[in-house]
Amino acid sequence: MTTTATTAEKLAAVIEQSQREARLTEEVVASFAGAEDPRLKQIMEATVRHLHALVREVRLTEEEWEYAIDFLTRVGHITDDRRQEFVLLSDVLGVSMQTIAVNNPAAGDATEATVFGPFHVEDSPEIEIGGDIAGGAVGQPCWVEGTVTDTEGNPVAGAKIEAWEADEDGFYDVQYSDERTAGRAWLRTDENGRYAFWALTPTPYPIPHDGPVGQMLQAVDRSPVRAAHLHFMVTAEGYRRLVTHIFVTGDPQLEIGDSVFGVKESLIKDFIPQPAGTPTPDGRNLGEKTWARARFDVVLAQD
Amino acid sequence: MTTTATTAEKLAAVIEQSQREARLTEEVVASFAGAEDPRLKQIMEATVRHLHALVREVRLTEEEWEYAIDFLTRVGHITDDRRQEFVLLSDVLGVSMQTIAVNNPAAGDATEATVFGPFHVEDSPEIEIGGDIAGGAVGQPCWVEGTVTDTEGNPVAGAKIEAWEADEDGFYDVQYSDERTAGRAWLRTDENGRYAFWALTPTPYPIPHDGPVGQMLQAVDRSPVRAAHLHFMVTAEGYRRLVTHIFVTGDPQLEIGDSVFGVKESLIKDFIPQPAGTPTPDGRNLGEKTWARARFDVVLAQD
Repeated sequence: MTTTATTAEKLAAVIEQSQREARLTEEVVASFAGAEDPRLKQIMEATVRHLHALVREVRLTEEEWEYAIDFLTRVGHITDDRRQEFVLLSDVLGVSMQTIAVNNPAAGDATEATVFGPFHVEDSPEIEIGGDIAGGAVGQPCWVEGTVTDTEGNPVAGAKIEAWEADEDGFYDVQYSDERTAGRAWLRTDENGRYAFWALTPTPYPIPHDGPVGQMLQAVDRSPVRAAHLHFMVTAEGYRRLVTHIFVTGDPQLEIGDSVFGVKESLIKDFIPQPAGTPTPDGRNLGEKTWARARFDVVLAQD
Repeated sequence: MTTTATTAEKLAAVIEQSQREARLTEEVVASFAGAEDPRLKQIMEATVRHLHALVREVRLTEEEWEYAIDFLTRVGHITDDRRQEFVLLSDVLGVSMQTIAVNNPAAGDATEATVFGPFHVEDSPEIEIGGDIAGGAVGQPCWVEGTVTDTEGNPVAGAKIEAWEADEDGFYDVQYSDERTAGRAWLRTDENGRYAFWALTPTPYPIPHDGPVGQMLQAVDRSPVRAAHLHFMVTAEGYRRLVTHIFVTGDPQLEIGDSVFGVKESLIKDFIPQPAGTPTPDGRNLGEKTWARARFDVVLAQD
């Protein structure tokens, strides 16, 4: 019963196959023609084109498709009020960071944005310039200072700076078993656009990796660890909101790779170690503790 | 403080922005360099490229990203042992059908494949040629007959044909509240590759649309209804497994659009109405009932 297809027959089959696949994509795209919301229509059409292109490009097998369905199901089932595995998935695929990039276009030497992360909290405590955001969180004290200016170098007075970070064990206050607030606060720049506060020297910590996203990272031999960082959100009337981090020069995780791709060269700062007993900028007595100091000058883009 | 950027400055910013976005994608792709499994590496890299291209193309806002995360979370949370909303999502985006297309390449005039659907059951009852798959399911009787041949026209004897379908209310037996089997059976072709069985004339029915996928369909003004169809799975030693449906000429849903894009022109068949009292092919007495007859000649591709 078996006969050998001629070259012409094989070519005809390849062309027919390619046309079938392309027609299917166009048929699905056309199904959104009646959508009233033009933006929803655009997003759905583009989503279909890219998903279909992916399936066609890798020649996804039915078994792989089933695996993907099962993977997404597991991501859905581990997600609850306290854990958002889809955000983690978006983070480790760099989709979160690409969304940040798209929404924070380059503007002169405006400070680059990076991922927001899941640990920001509204209504953190206010501190004065020179105050301490640690609020009892454990770690090496660190003096952070800098200015907020516009892209012309003019100081931005009264800019609101929110800062938040994990403690030296890698936990944010919202991960503590009690309700206390620690490792977060906000302050405003002075009339010269200057700010300064005490924080903790940031340390690396892993994203939650005991779920399907962690299994995926393991399967591709990737580290779940985030490079050490201190979160900033800077807002001022007339300027684009800046959500960013600063990273620590020399952190070995910078070489290994930040698990969510938040690092930008321009955001890596020197955290200069200060031997125990070194006088502090504000006269704070740290006893026998070592400490560090870092400088972060923020440039806001106009709104 | 505001100054107007020059054209050169604007152009520089656009170029810098484009480079930042492209560099980010490459950074994420590079993170899979250590994956041991080359196929997993290929799929993850392609997934990242297409997801990033989607975000860049539509300039996804952070609010839209949050909506997408929430949508996927809702799809995950409605999914359980009895309901698979991710499969529905894949179906209505045509991703399931594209996967089928990719895995069932055109081969001469081999019968086209279509979606498997969630309602196939292993171990359905065996029937003789001329038997009835309805098993008590309610609907208009329909005589289905045809042949199974290879792409050279040679009959395939002993091919296993599994057929399954919904009743006239749009429900498969697995959706009934009791455990009975109905609307499904299997039989084999005779020595001339011929088969025939009684079934029900297929009727359109909606996919489950009371969840997030249904909301999405409503938002883009799409029907959740599947064109009327009868499922076939045909297997024979030495041939590629064929999973397909036949559709009904004149079904208005064919114009509106099948919600999962399963329809191929070549799979639309005449279900010829037979007035009550018309003699049946096998002498079965249907009393005052109308019935229909359809022909479906199957061509199997070599394995």
